[in-house]
Amino acid sequence: MTRKQLIQQIQLKKSYLCVGLDTDLTKIPKHLQSHPDAVFEFNKQIIDATQDLCVAYKINTAFYEALGLKGWEAMEKTVNYIPKDQFIIADAKRGDIGNTSSQYAKAFFETMDFDAITVAPYMGEDSVKPFLEFENKWAIVLGLTSNAGSKDFEQLRLVRDSDSCRENQSGEFLYETVLQKVSSWGNINNLMFVIGATKASELEVIRKIIPDHFLLVPGVGFQGGSLEEVSKYGMNKDCGLLINASRAIIYAGEKENFASEARAIAQQYQSEMAGYLT
Amino acid sequence: MTRKQLIQQIQLKKSYLCVGLDTDLTKIPKHLQSHPDAVFEFNKQIIDATQDLCVAYKINTAFYEALGLKGWEAMEKTVNYIPKDQFIIADAKRGDIGNTSSQYAKAFFETMDFDAITVAPYMGEDSVKPFLEFENKWAIVLGLTSNAGSKDFEQLRLVRDSDSCRENQSGEFLYETVLQKVSSWGNINNLMFVIGATKASELEVIRKIIPDHFLLVPGVGFQGGSLEEVSKYGMNKDCGLLINASRAIIYAGEKENFASEARAIAQQYQSEMAGYLT
Repeated sequence: MTRKQLIQQIQLKKSYLCVGLDTDLTKIPKHLQSHPDAVFEFNKQIIDATQDLCVAYKINTAFYEALGLKGWEAMEKTVNYIPKDQFIIADAKRGDIGNTSSQYAKAFFETMDFDAITVAPYMGEDSVKPFLEFENKWAIVLGLTSNAGSKDFEQLRLVRDSDSCRENQSGEFLYETVLQKVSSWGNINNLMFVIGATKASELEVIRKIIPDHFLLVPGVGFQGGSLEEVSKYGMNKDCGLLINASRAIIYAGEKENFASEARAIAQQYQSEMAGYLT
Repeated sequence: MTRKQLIQQIQLKKSYLCVGLDTDLTKIPKHLQSHPDAVFEFNKQIIDATQDLCVAYKINTAFYEALGLKGWEAMEKTVNYIPKDQFIIADAKRGDIGNTSSQYAKAFFETMDFDAITVAPYMGEDSVKPFLEFENKWAIVLGLTSNAGSKDFEQLRLVRDSDSCRENQSGEFLYETVLQKVSSWGNINNLMFVIGATKASELEVIRKIIPDHFLLVPGVGFQGGSLEEVSKYGMNKDCGLLINASRAIIYAGEKENFASEARAIAQQYQSEMAGYLT
Protein backbone atom coordinates (compact mmCIF):
# COMPACT_ATOMS: atom_id res chain seq x y z
CA MET A 1 0.00 0.00 0.00
CA THR A 2 1.26 3.50 -0.83
CA ARG A 3 1.31 6.45 1.55
CA LYS A 4 -1.31 8.15 -0.58
CA GLN A 5 -3.65 5.16 -0.36
CA LEU A 6 -3.18 4.96 3.41
CA ILE A 7 -4.01 8.64 3.83
CA GLN A 8 -7.10 8.21 1.64
CA GLN A 9 -8.32 5.37 3.86
CA ILE A 10 -7.78 7.49 6.97
CA GLN A 11 -9.81 10.33 5.47
CA LEU A 12 -12.54 8.00 4.20
CA LYS A 13 -13.03 6.16 7.48
CA LYS A 14 -12.18 9.11 9.74
CA SER A 15 -9.97 6.71 11.64
CA TYR A 16 -6.29 6.00 12.22
CA LEU A 17 -6.98 2.93 14.31
CA CYS A 18 -4.87 -0.21 13.97
CA VAL A 19 -6.35 -3.36 15.49
CA GLY A 20 -3.71 -5.65 16.95
CA LEU A 21 -4.32 -9.36 16.45
CA ASP A 22 -2.28 -10.69 19.39
CA THR A 23 -4.42 -13.77 19.36
CA ASP A 24 -3.73 -16.04 22.34
CA LEU A 25 -5.51 -19.39 22.44
CA THR A 26 -5.81 -19.17 26.23
CA LYS A 27 -7.55 -15.78 26.09
CA ILE A 28 -10.12 -16.19 23.32
CA PRO A 29 -13.72 -17.01 24.29
CA LYS A 30 -14.21 -20.52 25.70
CA HIS A 31 -16.72 -21.55 23.04
CA LEU A 32 -14.02 -21.06 20.36
CA GLN A 33 -11.12 -22.77 22.10
CA SER A 34 -12.07 -26.24 20.85
CA HIS A 35 -12.67 -25.02 17.27
CA PRO A 36 -10.34 -26.92 14.89
CA ASP A 37 -9.11 -23.60 13.45
CA ALA A 38 -9.64 -21.47 16.57
CA VAL A 39 -7.11 -18.69 15.96
CA PHE A 40 -8.21 -18.00 12.41
CA GLU A 41 -11.91 -18.27 13.30
CA PHE A 42 -11.42 -15.73 16.12
CA ASN A 43 -9.47 -13.38 13.84
CA LYS A 44 -12.05 -13.70 11.08
CA GLN A 45 -14.88 -12.63 13.37
CA ILE A 46 -12.84 -9.74 14.79
CA ILE A 47 -11.94 -8.55 11.27
CA ASP A 48 -15.56 -8.81 10.07
CA ALA A 49 -16.69 -6.75 13.07
CA THR A 50 -14.07 -4.00 12.93
CA GLN A 51 -12.91 -3.49 9.34
CA ASP A 52 -15.02 -0.41 8.63
CA LEU A 53 -13.67 1.28 11.79
CA CYS A 54 -9.92 0.78 11.33
CA VAL A 55 -7.33 1.31 8.60
CA ALA A 56 -4.78 -1.27 9.69
CA TYR A 57 -4.35 -4.68 11.31
CA LYS A 58 -1.17 -5.63 13.15
CA ILE A 59 -0.33 -9.30 13.54
CA ASN A 60 1.99 -10.03 16.45
CA THR A 61 3.95 -12.94 14.99
CA ALA A 62 5.08 -14.30 18.39
CA PHE A 63 1.59 -15.50 19.25
CA TYR A 64 1.43 -17.48 16.02
CA GLU A 65 4.98 -18.88 16.20
CA ALA A 66 4.21 -20.16 19.71
CA LEU A 67 1.71 -22.56 18.12
CA GLY A 68 4.22 -23.95 15.63
CA LEU A 69 3.13 -24.99 12.13
CA LYS A 70 -0.55 -24.61 12.97
CA GLY A 71 0.06 -21.03 14.11
CA TRP A 72 2.06 -20.12 11.02
CA GLU A 73 -0.82 -21.47 8.93
CA ALA A 74 -3.33 -19.35 10.89
CA MET A 75 -1.15 -16.29 10.27
CA GLU A 76 -1.05 -16.91 6.52
CA LYS A 77 -4.82 -17.43 6.40
CA THR A 78 -5.42 -14.27 8.41
CA VAL A 79 -3.23 -12.15 6.10
CA ASN A 80 -5.10 -13.52 3.11
CA TYR A 81 -8.47 -12.82 4.74
CA ILE A 82 -7.83 -9.16 5.63
CA PRO A 83 -9.36 -6.85 2.96
CA LYS A 84 -6.85 -5.29 0.58
CA ASP A 85 -7.78 -1.74 1.57
CA GLN A 86 -6.27 -2.38 5.02
CA PHE A 87 -2.62 -1.70 5.85
CA ILE A 88 -1.32 -5.03 7.16
CA ILE A 89 1.57 -4.99 9.61
CA ALA A 90 3.75 -7.94 10.66
CA ASP A 91 4.79 -7.01 14.20
CA ALA A 92 7.84 -9.23 14.04
CA LYS A 93 10.70 -7.01 15.32
CA ARG A 94 13.13 -8.61 12.87
CA GLY A 95 16.64 -7.40 12.00
CA ASP A 96 19.89 -9.19 11.12
CA ILE A 97 22.86 -8.84 8.77
CA GLY A 98 21.98 -7.89 5.20
CA ASN A 99 21.48 -11.24 3.50
CA THR A 100 19.43 -12.51 6.45
CA SER A 101 17.24 -9.39 6.60
CA SER A 102 16.61 -9.94 2.88
CA GLN A 103 15.24 -13.38 3.71
CA TYR A 104 12.95 -11.91 6.38
CA ALA A 105 11.75 -9.29 3.89
CA LYS A 106 11.01 -12.07 1.42
CA ALA A 107 9.08 -13.99 4.10
CA PHE A 108 6.78 -11.12 4.98
CA PHE A 109 6.54 -9.17 1.69
CA GLU A 110 6.61 -11.96 -0.91
CA THR A 111 5.77 -15.32 0.66
CA MET A 112 3.09 -13.50 2.67
CA ASP A 113 1.52 -10.25 1.51
CA PHE A 114 2.11 -7.92 4.46
CA ASP A 115 2.42 -4.18 3.74
CA ALA A 116 4.88 -3.56 6.55
CA ILE A 117 7.11 -5.23 9.11
CA THR A 118 8.45 -3.89 12.41
CA VAL A 119 12.26 -3.86 12.51
CA ALA A 120 14.79 -3.63 15.38
CA PRO A 121 17.57 -1.10 14.71
CA TYR A 122 20.43 -2.37 16.93
CA MET A 123 22.53 -3.89 14.11
CA GLY A 124 22.41 -0.74 11.97
CA GLU A 125 22.02 0.23 8.34
CA ASP A 126 22.63 -3.05 6.53
CA SER A 127 20.09 -4.74 8.81
CA VAL A 128 17.34 -2.22 7.96
CA LYS A 129 17.92 -1.41 4.28
CA PRO A 130 16.84 -4.76 2.80
CA PHE A 131 13.31 -4.03 4.07
CA LEU A 132 13.25 -0.75 2.13
CA GLU A 133 13.87 -2.27 -1.27
CA PHE A 134 10.36 -3.55 -1.98
CA GLU A 135 7.92 -1.36 -3.87
CA ASN A 136 5.00 -0.11 -1.77
CA LYS A 137 6.25 -2.02 1.27
CA TRP A 138 7.32 -0.50 4.56
CA ALA A 139 9.77 -0.94 7.41
CA ILE A 140 8.49 0.29 10.77
CA VAL A 141 11.62 0.73 12.85
CA LEU A 142 11.64 0.72 16.66
CA GLY A 143 12.32 4.23 17.96
CA LEU A 144 11.09 4.74 21.49
CA THR A 145 9.07 1.87 22.93
CA SER A 146 6.57 2.10 25.77
CA ASN A 147 7.85 -0.71 27.99
CA ALA A 148 9.81 -0.24 31.21
CA GLY A 149 12.96 -1.60 29.52
CA SER A 150 13.08 1.38 27.15
CA LYS A 151 15.08 3.08 29.93
CA ASP A 152 17.86 0.47 29.72
CA PHE A 153 19.27 1.45 26.33
CA GLU A 154 16.86 3.55 24.23
CA GLN A 155 16.91 6.36 26.77
CA LEU A 156 20.65 6.45 27.44
CA ARG A 157 22.44 9.60 26.39
CA LEU A 158 25.11 9.54 23.71
CA VAL A 159 28.24 11.63 23.54
CA ARG A 160 27.54 13.99 20.68
CA ASP A 161 31.10 15.23 20.23
CA SER A 162 33.96 16.33 22.43
CA ASP A 163 32.85 19.98 22.33
CA SER A 164 29.38 19.34 23.66
CA CYS A 165 30.97 17.20 26.33
CA ARG A 166 33.37 19.94 27.39
CA GLU A 167 30.49 22.36 27.61
CA ASN A 168 28.75 19.79 29.78
CA GLN A 169 25.79 19.56 27.47
CA SER A 170 24.31 16.14 27.69
CA GLY A 171 23.98 14.51 24.29
CA GLU A 172 20.94 13.05 22.63
CA PHE A 173 19.10 9.94 23.70
CA LEU A 174 19.98 6.82 21.73
CA TYR A 175 16.42 6.68 20.34
CA GLU A 176 16.74 10.22 18.97
CA THR A 177 19.90 9.25 17.09
CA VAL A 178 18.08 6.13 15.86
CA LEU A 179 15.28 8.31 14.44
CA GLN A 180 17.77 10.67 12.78
CA LYS A 181 20.03 8.04 11.24
CA VAL A 182 17.33 5.60 10.17
CA SER A 183 15.24 8.35 8.57
CA SER A 184 18.20 9.09 6.26
CA TRP A 185 18.19 5.49 5.01
CA GLY A 186 14.70 5.64 3.55
CA ASN A 187 11.92 8.15 3.04
CA ILE A 188 8.39 8.91 4.18
CA ASN A 189 7.03 6.47 1.59
CA ASN A 190 8.78 3.35 2.88
CA LEU A 191 9.64 4.06 6.51
CA MET A 192 7.64 4.55 9.70
CA PHE A 193 8.67 4.42 13.36
CA VAL A 194 7.32 2.67 16.44
CA ILE A 195 6.85 5.40 19.04
CA GLY A 196 5.55 4.35 22.44
CA ALA A 197 5.64 7.89 23.72
CA THR A 198 2.47 9.45 25.00
CA LYS A 199 3.94 12.52 26.71
CA ALA A 200 3.60 15.86 24.98
CA SER A 201 7.23 16.76 25.64
CA GLU A 202 8.56 13.57 24.05
CA LEU A 203 6.26 13.80 21.04
CA GLU A 204 7.29 17.39 20.39
CA VAL A 205 10.97 16.41 20.29
CA ILE A 206 10.21 13.41 18.08
CA ARG A 207 8.18 15.50 15.64
CA LYS A 208 11.11 17.91 15.32
CA ILE A 209 13.32 15.03 14.19
CA ILE A 210 10.78 13.28 11.96
CA PRO A 211 7.99 15.75 11.16
CA ASP A 212 6.54 13.88 8.18
CA HIS A 213 6.86 10.18 8.92
CA PHE A 214 3.97 8.02 10.04
CA LEU A 215 4.29 6.83 13.64
CA LEU A 216 2.92 3.50 14.85
CA VAL A 217 1.87 4.13 18.45
CA PRO A 218 1.05 1.12 20.63
CA GLY A 219 -0.91 0.90 23.84
CA VAL A 220 -2.96 4.08 23.90
CA GLY A 221 -6.11 4.22 26.04
CA PHE A 222 -9.21 5.95 24.76
CA GLN A 223 -11.60 8.61 26.17
CA GLY A 224 -9.86 11.53 27.78
CA GLY A 225 -6.63 9.62 28.18
CA SER A 226 -3.51 9.47 26.15
CA LEU A 227 -5.26 9.21 22.77
CA GLU A 228 -5.99 12.91 23.03
CA GLU A 229 -2.39 13.76 23.96
CA VAL A 230 -0.88 11.62 21.20
CA SER A 231 -3.27 13.03 18.61
CA LYS A 232 -2.63 16.62 19.70
CA TYR A 233 1.17 16.42 19.72
CA GLY A 234 1.85 13.58 17.28
CA MET A 235 -0.44 14.37 14.37
CA ASN A 236 0.89 16.08 11.24
CA LYS A 237 -0.87 17.47 8.16
CA ASP A 238 -1.33 13.98 6.68
CA CYS A 239 -2.44 12.58 10.06
CA GLY A 240 0.86 10.67 10.32
CA LEU A 241 -0.41 8.36 13.04
CA LEU A 242 -1.47 4.75 13.30
CA ILE A 243 -2.64 4.06 16.82
CA ASN A 244 -2.74 0.45 17.80
CA ALA A 245 -5.03 -1.21 20.30
CA SER A 246 -4.81 -4.95 20.77
CA ARG A 247 -6.14 -6.50 23.97
CA ALA A 248 -8.52 -3.60 24.72
CA ILE A 249 -10.41 -4.43 21.54
CA ILE A 250 -10.02 -8.13 20.79
CA TYR A 251 -10.60 -9.32 24.36
CA ALA A 252 -13.39 -6.82 25.10
CA GLY A 253 -15.86 -9.70 25.41
CA GLU A 254 -15.49 -13.25 26.66
CA LYS A 255 -18.70 -14.79 25.33
CA GLU A 256 -20.43 -15.60 22.05
CA ASN A 257 -20.94 -11.88 21.38
CA PHE A 258 -17.19 -11.09 21.66
CA ALA A 259 -17.06 -9.67 18.13
CA SER A 260 -19.79 -7.13 18.75
CA GLU A 261 -18.14 -6.19 22.06
CA ALA A 262 -14.89 -5.69 20.15
CA ARG A 263 -16.74 -3.57 17.60
CA ALA A 264 -18.18 -1.38 20.37
CA ILE A 265 -14.71 -0.58 21.69
CA ALA A 266 -13.30 0.00 18.19
CA GLN A 267 -16.23 2.34 17.61
CA GLN A 268 -15.27 4.39 20.66
CA TYR A 269 -11.72 4.77 19.38
CA GLN A 270 -12.95 5.70 15.91
CA SER A 271 -15.44 8.28 17.21
CA GLU A 272 -12.81 10.00 19.28
CA MET A 273 -10.34 9.90 16.37
CA ALA A 274 -12.90 11.44 14.00
CA GLY A 275 -13.00 14.42 16.33
CA TYR A 276 -9.24 14.89 16.27
CA LEU A 277 -9.10 14.62 12.46
CA THR A 278 -11.43 17.55 11.79
CA MET B 1 21.51 -28.42 27.68
CA THR B 2 23.47 -27.29 30.75
CA ARG B 3 26.75 -25.40 30.71
CA LYS B 4 28.45 -28.45 32.20
CA GLN B 5 27.14 -30.71 29.42
CA LEU B 6 28.26 -28.23 26.76
CA ILE B 7 31.78 -28.05 28.21
CA GLN B 8 31.92 -31.86 28.34
CA GLN B 9 31.03 -32.04 24.64
CA ILE B 10 33.73 -29.49 23.79
CA GLN B 11 36.34 -31.53 25.69
CA LEU B 12 35.16 -34.83 24.21
CA LYS B 13 35.17 -33.65 20.60
CA LYS B 14 38.07 -31.20 20.97
CA SER B 15 35.89 -28.74 19.11
CA TYR B 16 33.94 -25.57 19.74
CA LEU B 17 32.58 -25.43 16.22
CA CYS B 18 28.96 -24.45 15.52
CA VAL B 19 27.68 -25.30 12.05
CA GLY B 20 25.24 -22.70 10.73
CA LEU B 21 22.32 -24.10 8.77
CA ASP B 22 21.50 -20.99 6.68
CA THR B 23 19.94 -23.25 4.11
CA ASP B 24 18.97 -21.37 0.95
CA LEU B 25 17.08 -23.31 -1.73
CA THR B 26 18.88 -21.37 -4.46
CA LYS B 27 22.33 -22.30 -3.13
CA ILE B 28 22.05 -26.01 -2.38
CA PRO B 29 23.34 -28.49 -4.96
CA LYS B 30 21.27 -28.65 -8.14
CA HIS B 31 20.49 -32.37 -7.80
CA LEU B 32 18.65 -31.63 -4.52
CA GLN B 33 16.67 -28.60 -5.60
CA SER B 34 13.80 -30.64 -7.02
CA HIS B 35 13.66 -32.95 -3.98
CA PRO B 36 10.16 -32.75 -2.42
CA ASP B 37 11.74 -32.02 0.97
CA ALA B 38 14.91 -30.31 -0.28
CA VAL B 39 15.82 -28.16 2.74
CA PHE B 40 15.46 -30.96 5.27
CA GLU B 41 17.22 -33.47 3.01
CA PHE B 42 20.17 -31.07 2.60
CA ASN B 43 20.32 -30.39 6.35
CA LYS B 44 20.11 -34.10 7.15
CA GLN B 45 23.12 -34.91 4.98
CA ILE B 46 25.11 -31.96 6.40
CA ILE B 47 24.30 -33.05 9.97
CA ASP B 48 25.21 -36.69 9.27
CA ALA B 49 28.55 -35.57 7.80
CA THR B 50 29.56 -33.06 10.51
CA GLN B 51 28.06 -34.09 13.86
CA ASP B 52 31.22 -35.69 15.27
CA LEU B 53 33.20 -32.52 14.48
CA CYS B 54 30.97 -29.85 16.01
CA VAL B 55 29.19 -29.24 19.31
CA ALA B 56 26.40 -26.98 18.06
CA TYR B 57 24.10 -26.28 15.13
CA LYS B 58 22.64 -22.83 14.50
CA ILE B 59 19.46 -22.52 12.48
CA ASN B 60 19.00 -19.10 10.87
CA THR B 61 15.22 -18.85 11.05
CA ALA B 62 14.94 -16.22 8.26
CA PHE B 63 15.86 -18.76 5.58
CA TYR B 64 13.05 -21.04 6.75
CA GLU B 65 10.44 -18.29 7.22
CA ALA B 66 11.12 -17.12 3.65
CA LEU B 67 9.67 -20.44 2.46
CA GLY B 68 6.46 -20.07 4.46
CA LEU B 69 4.72 -23.09 5.97
CA LYS B 70 6.97 -25.54 4.12
CA GLY B 71 10.04 -23.81 5.57
CA TRP B 72 8.69 -23.79 9.10
CA GLU B 73 8.04 -27.51 8.73
CA ALA B 74 11.63 -28.09 7.51
CA MET B 75 12.91 -26.18 10.55
CA GLU B 76 10.88 -28.32 12.96
CA LYS B 77 12.07 -31.53 11.27
CA THR B 78 15.67 -30.34 11.38
CA VAL B 79 15.52 -29.54 15.10
CA ASN B 80 14.06 -32.98 15.76
CA TYR B 81 16.75 -34.66 13.65
CA ILE B 82 19.78 -33.03 15.33
CA PRO B 83 21.27 -35.40 17.95
CA LYS B 84 20.50 -34.48 21.56
CA ASP B 85 24.19 -34.10 22.47
CA GLN B 86 24.33 -31.01 20.22
CA PHE B 87 23.60 -27.47 21.45
CA ILE B 88 20.84 -26.24 19.12
CA ILE B 89 20.57 -22.50 18.51
CA ALA B 90 17.64 -20.63 16.93
CA ASP B 91 19.32 -17.64 15.32
CA ALA B 92 16.11 -15.63 15.37
CA LYS B 93 17.15 -12.22 16.83
CA ARG B 94 13.82 -11.93 18.66
CA GLY B 95 12.92 -9.40 21.35
CA ASP B 96 9.70 -7.56 22.25
CA ILE B 97 7.75 -6.44 25.32
CA GLY B 98 7.50 -9.01 28.11
CA ASN B 99 4.35 -10.93 27.22
CA THR B 100 5.39 -11.11 23.56
CA SER B 101 8.93 -12.28 24.35
CA SER B 102 7.30 -14.99 26.50
CA GLN B 103 5.46 -16.20 23.40
CA TYR B 104 8.70 -16.29 21.41
CA ALA B 105 10.35 -18.24 24.22
CA LYS B 106 7.46 -20.69 24.14
CA ALA B 107 7.81 -21.04 20.36
CA PHE B 108 11.51 -21.93 20.45
CA PHE B 109 11.89 -23.66 23.84
CA GLU B 110 8.59 -25.55 24.16
CA THR B 111 6.87 -25.89 20.79
CA MET B 112 10.30 -26.60 19.32
CA ASP B 113 13.16 -28.01 21.37
CA PHE B 114 15.94 -25.48 20.80
CA ASP B 115 18.54 -25.01 23.56
CA ALA B 116 19.06 -21.33 22.83
CA ILE B 117 17.73 -18.35 20.92
CA THR B 118 19.52 -15.18 19.81
CA VAL B 119 17.91 -12.04 21.26
CA ALA B 120 18.10 -8.33 20.30
CA PRO B 121 18.65 -6.07 23.33
CA TYR B 122 17.26 -2.71 22.13
CA MET B 123 13.99 -2.87 24.13
CA GLY B 124 15.74 -3.64 27.43
CA GLU B 125 15.27 -5.87 30.45
CA ASP B 126 11.64 -6.95 30.12
CA SER B 127 12.30 -7.97 26.51
CA VAL B 128 15.21 -10.25 27.49
CA LYS B 129 14.17 -11.73 30.83
CA PRO B 130 11.35 -14.00 29.57
CA PHE B 131 14.00 -16.01 27.69
CA LEU B 132 15.92 -16.62 30.93
CA GLU B 133 13.07 -18.30 32.76
CA PHE B 134 13.30 -21.75 31.17
CA GLU B 135 15.39 -24.44 32.83
CA ASN B 136 18.51 -25.40 30.87
CA LYS B 137 17.62 -22.98 28.06
CA TRP B 138 19.68 -19.99 26.97
CA ALA B 139 19.34 -16.47 25.63
CA ILE B 140 22.24 -15.40 23.38
CA VAL B 141 22.03 -11.62 23.37
CA LEU B 142 23.51 -9.44 20.62
CA GLY B 143 26.54 -7.60 21.93
CA LEU B 144 28.89 -6.49 19.18
CA THR B 145 28.04 -7.77 15.72
CA SER B 146 30.45 -8.14 12.82
CA ASN B 147 28.47 -6.31 10.12
CA ALA B 148 29.27 -2.81 8.84
CA GLY B 149 26.13 -1.45 10.52
CA SER B 150 27.54 -2.22 13.97
CA LYS B 151 29.12 1.25 13.71
CA ASP B 152 25.72 2.95 13.48
CA PHE B 153 24.55 2.32 17.04
CA GLU B 154 26.48 -0.48 18.80
CA GLN B 155 29.73 1.47 18.59
CA LEU B 156 28.41 4.88 19.61
CA ARG B 157 29.76 6.26 22.86
CA LEU B 158 27.47 6.88 25.81
CA VAL B 159 27.70 9.66 28.35
CA ARG B 160 28.73 7.85 31.51
CA ASP B 161 27.90 10.63 33.94
CA SER B 162 28.35 14.38 34.11
CA ASP B 163 31.72 14.08 35.86
CA SER B 164 33.30 11.96 33.18
CA CYS B 165 31.89 14.38 30.64
CA ARG B 166 33.42 17.38 32.39
CA GLU B 167 36.73 15.62 32.49
CA ASN B 168 36.32 15.03 28.78
CA GLN B 169 36.59 11.29 29.15
CA SER B 170 34.67 9.61 26.42
CA GLY B 171 32.18 7.11 27.77
CA GLU B 172 31.71 3.47 26.95
CA PHE B 173 30.44 2.10 23.69
CA LEU B 174 26.75 1.17 23.69
CA TYR B 175 27.66 -2.51 23.22
CA GLU B 176 29.84 -2.44 26.34
CA THR B 177 26.93 -1.14 28.37
CA VAL B 178 24.72 -3.81 26.79
CA LEU B 179 27.17 -6.51 27.95
CA GLN B 180 27.33 -5.06 31.46
CA LYS B 181 23.61 -4.55 31.98
CA VAL B 182 22.39 -7.72 30.31
CA SER B 183 24.91 -9.87 32.20
CA SER B 184 23.31 -8.66 35.45
CA TRP B 185 19.89 -9.99 34.31
CA GLY B 186 21.00 -13.60 34.05
CA ASN B 187 24.04 -15.73 34.78
CA ILE B 188 26.65 -17.80 33.00
CA ASN B 189 24.27 -20.77 32.96
CA ASN B 190 21.48 -19.14 30.94
CA LEU B 191 23.10 -16.27 29.07
CA MET B 192 25.62 -16.00 26.23
CA PHE B 193 26.51 -13.10 23.93
CA VAL B 194 26.90 -12.74 20.17
CA ILE B 195 30.33 -11.19 19.65
CA GLY B 196 31.38 -10.50 16.08
CA ALA B 197 34.73 -9.10 17.21
CA THR B 198 37.88 -10.69 15.92
CA LYS B 199 40.37 -8.03 16.99
CA ALA B 200 42.55 -8.73 20.00
CA SER B 201 41.93 -5.27 21.47
CA GLU B 202 38.15 -5.62 21.33
CA LEU B 203 38.17 -9.15 22.73
CA GLU B 204 40.35 -8.10 25.64
CA VAL B 205 37.91 -5.35 26.61
CA ILE B 206 34.94 -7.71 26.21
CA ARG B 207 36.57 -10.40 28.36
CA LYS B 208 37.11 -7.81 31.11
CA ILE B 209 33.35 -7.14 31.17
CA ILE B 210 32.19 -10.75 30.79
CA PRO B 211 35.10 -13.06 31.67
CA ASP B 212 33.05 -16.20 32.20
CA HIS B 213 30.20 -16.14 29.68
CA PHE B 214 30.18 -18.18 26.52
CA LEU B 215 30.49 -16.09 23.35
CA LEU B 216 28.90 -17.05 20.05
CA VAL B 217 31.27 -15.76 17.39
CA PRO B 218 30.05 -15.68 13.77
CA GLY B 219 32.00 -15.45 10.56
CA VAL B 220 35.50 -16.56 11.51
CA GLY B 221 37.82 -17.84 8.81
CA PHE B 222 40.09 -20.80 9.47
CA GLN B 223 43.82 -21.50 9.00
CA GLY B 224 46.05 -18.74 10.18
CA GLY B 225 43.27 -16.19 10.12
CA SER B 226 40.99 -14.83 12.74
CA LEU B 227 40.20 -18.21 14.32
CA GLU B 228 43.64 -18.05 15.96
CA GLU B 229 43.09 -14.48 17.18
CA VAL B 230 39.60 -15.17 18.56
CA SER B 231 40.79 -18.34 20.29
CA LYS B 232 43.82 -16.62 21.78
CA TYR B 233 42.02 -13.57 23.16
CA GLY B 234 38.46 -14.87 23.57
CA MET B 235 38.95 -18.26 25.24
CA ASN B 236 38.51 -18.67 28.98
CA LYS B 237 39.22 -21.60 31.32
CA ASP B 238 36.02 -23.39 30.23
CA CYS B 239 36.70 -22.60 26.54
CA GLY B 240 33.80 -20.11 26.58
CA LEU B 241 33.57 -19.97 22.79
CA LEU B 242 31.22 -21.26 20.16
CA ILE B 243 32.57 -20.33 16.76
CA ASN B 244 30.07 -20.45 13.95
CA ALA B 245 30.72 -21.14 10.31
CA SER B 246 27.79 -21.33 7.92
CA ARG B 247 28.39 -20.85 4.21
CA ALA B 248 32.06 -21.85 4.37
CA ILE B 249 30.97 -25.31 5.47
CA ILE B 250 27.52 -26.03 4.08
CA TYR B 251 28.22 -24.69 0.58
CA ALA B 252 31.77 -26.11 0.34
CA GLY B 253 30.64 -28.39 -2.49
CA GLU B 254 28.08 -27.98 -5.24
CA LYS B 255 27.73 -31.55 -6.41
CA GLU B 256 26.56 -34.96 -5.17
CA ASN B 257 29.52 -35.14 -2.79
CA PHE B 258 28.62 -31.82 -1.06
CA ALA B 259 28.32 -33.47 2.35
CA SER B 260 31.83 -34.93 2.25
CA GLU B 261 33.15 -31.56 1.05
CA ALA B 262 31.38 -29.92 4.01
CA ARG B 263 32.92 -32.51 6.30
CA ALA B 264 36.39 -31.76 4.98
CA ILE B 265 36.04 -28.07 5.85
CA ALA B 266 34.52 -28.82 9.26
CA GLN B 267 37.47 -31.14 9.85
CA GLN B 268 39.90 -28.28 9.18
CA TYR B 269 38.12 -26.07 11.72
CA GLN B 270 38.07 -28.90 14.27
CA SER B 271 41.76 -29.75 13.81
CA GLU B 272 42.81 -26.16 14.32
CA MET B 273 40.50 -25.84 17.36
CA ALA B 274 41.94 -28.99 18.92
CA GLY B 275 45.31 -27.25 18.88
CA TYR B 276 44.01 -24.19 20.69
CA LEU B 277 42.24 -26.29 23.34
CA THR B 278 45.38 -28.05 24.56
